[in-house]
Amino acid sequence: MKTRIQTVQYENLIDELNKIETDTLLVVADHQVWSIYGKDFPFESITGKKVIFWKAGDGEKVKNFNDFQNCLEFFLDKGIHRKAHLVAIGGGATSDFAGFVAATILRGIEWSIIPTTLLSMVDASIGGKVAINSKVGKNLIGAFHMPKNVFICEAFLKTLPDTEMRSGMGEVLKYCFLDYGIYDLAIKKTELTEVIKACAEYKQKLTEEDFKETGVRKILNLGHSFGHALEFIYNLPHGEAISWGMVLIFKLFGNEKNINDISALKLALGMNEKSPPWQNKEFPVDKIMTYLSKDKKISALNSIDLILMKDIGNAVIENKSFEEIQNTLEANRDELRKFSL
Amino acid sequence: MKTRIQTVQYENLIDELNKIETDTLLVVADHQVWSIYGKDFPFESITGKKVIFWKAGDGEKVKNFNDFQNCLEFFLDKGIHRKAHLVAIGGGATSDFAGFVAATILRGIEWSIIPTTLLSMVDASIGGKVAINSKVGKNLIGAFHMPKNVFICEAFLKTLPDTEMRSGMGEVLKYCFLDYGIYDLAIKKTELTEVIKACAEYKQKLTEEDFKETGVRKILNLGHSFGHALEFIYNLPHGEAISWGMVLIFKLFGNEKNINDISALKLALGMNEKSPPWQNKEFPVDKIMTYLSKDKKISALNSIDLILMKDIGNAVIENKSFEEIQNTLEANRDELRKFSL
Repeated sequence: MKTRIQTVQYENLIDELNKIETDTLLVVADHQVWSIYGKDFPFESITGKKVIFWKAGDGEKVKNFNDFQNCLEFFLDKGIHRKAHLVAIGGGATSDFAGFVAATILRGIEWSIIPTTLLSMVDASIGGKVAINSKVGKNLIGAFHMPKNVFICEAFLKTLPDTEMRSGMGEVLKYCFLDYGIYDLAIKKTELTEVIKACAEYKQKLTEEDFKETGVRKILNLGHSFGHALEFIYNLPHGEAISWGMVLIFKLFGNEKNINDISALKLALGMNEKSPPWQNKEFPVDKIMTYLSKDKKISALNSIDLILMKDIGNAVIENKSFEEIQNTLEANRDELRKFSL
Repeated sequence: MKTRIQTVQYENLIDELNKIETDTLLVVADHQVWSIYGKDFPFESITGKKVIFWKAGDGEKVKNFNDFQNCLEFFLDKGIHRKAHLVAIGGGATSDFAGFVAATILRGIEWSIIPTTLLSMVDASIGGKVAINSKVGKNLIGAFHMPKNVFICEAFLKTLPDTEMRSGMGEVLKYCFLDYGIYDLAIKKTELTEVIKACAEYKQKLTEEDFKETGVRKILNLGHSFGHALEFIYNLPHGEAISWGMVLIFKLFGNEKNINDISALKLALGMNEKSPPWQNKEFPVDKIMTYLSKDKKISALNSIDLILMKDIGNAVIENKSFEEIQNTLEANRDELRKFSL
């Protein structure tokens, strides 16, 4: 199924919900988002539809079994049918959670997302990967369930905390490398809403080509193998970690132009941080290696696929042995320690 | 994805499991089945694969949230990967449950079924409908997740309780009406294993054509709307209830030949029960109507799709208003009371 991605003005969101072909809307909204926007979100102007509302614990907290069960039982208890339509309002955690509810309630109903963070607008809300967390790790229980609509409404970004904005920008930066069109928009400092839409559409195109993430969609993992390790080691916001994961990939296995491009793009996108989190500290080779070897996407036991950039718009997937990665990290240890953009 | 349906001798089952392309088998086996077959099921002759075993509470009991969570966390804790393959061994409840685990663990892994009841061989194990139960009703939380293999092994039927055999025969009877080839096998008293395979393949063909149950697959519901009501009202085994649901449909909206066919087929299949559960009792029109109007598959509020048979192999879907159904039930109340096959 195709997802329709639209940019929408805040005051027109209700109209869009009204247009959804269903007589029952199941709304799952992030608690924190709702405390800001809930009072003037005029659900009463939705006509001819029953609206059933479930408030989600904010952020990642909701992605647990208990809330999953409670939310399912809550909606089922209202006597819903298979043509009910679920709407997720919130960041990536909320849509991960709500999408898994939509994927499993009555064996799957249609759903839409109103992403309220930059990160979810360009990444989490696109592609249909939905999940909750296991005791063993994040996103280990879930499904692939494409949303019908993603309504991108920039108004929500006005109240987004600064760290969240920076986190989202890390993913925008990634798209600038993967696609020349997005690079061009960003480097020319085009309006943010256009850049966001281009990123979302690019990811959408890739995931349609490769729904189960076996081939080309893998390039979306640019910066993520090292990025996830850095996110864990330094407790960084996701997108920021990804941008430093890209820097690491470029330094170890990339070229000089990669580094120049990332400097220019960060400047154009207003990302001011020039110092990597490991600067002037012991570079954490062992911790990174331990983290990499735990990654669930590993296909064989002693190697991993890394995404490298020949140039803007020209990604290649290379399988690297853990041994080579470790040796390269160690050989660059001292230089990395001193490096800044 | 296509399911491969094979008939297998008991002593060759391990060979089939060995052939599955994976290095990790996750086995979910029904507790009761395992108490009979577990001791001589030689998992130790599986070579080059890790086998992780989870014993499921017998029958419908396992289809709850707690067991779902426990089973997922148990397997995840063993450090499995996306190329692990799950094998369900048991009746329909076990495969419903295990298939939902397979559908959601790491966002879905491949799986296979060894059905151990007649009902699951011809029905539950085919078509990829998997689910657990909600407090509100059965099978309300689940997914569509096609198994890779169904291994039909008639040996398991030797230890199947008689009521379970009769229950399965009710579904076999249904297929005899839907497909002339199966009718022909049954009426000629062909070996049961061939009839079973024909039923499974017929359902498989239909579900491939119509994976999400929007069109032609609906004819598999022959006898089910009334059958579910009778199952609930008289606490009958599923297949038996379906066979009386068919009788009811044929009496109310069918023809004389339908009734003659069902008599001849029941005789050929060794189904001796001639008296419907409502015989010589007050015919439960109100209870049936209450049950029908609760059915989650209802598409509009005042009518329901019923499957009628013009003749063997010639099914039609007719939308009937609740009013018409109620009037027809009431008009036939006295005749039904006295009816037997």
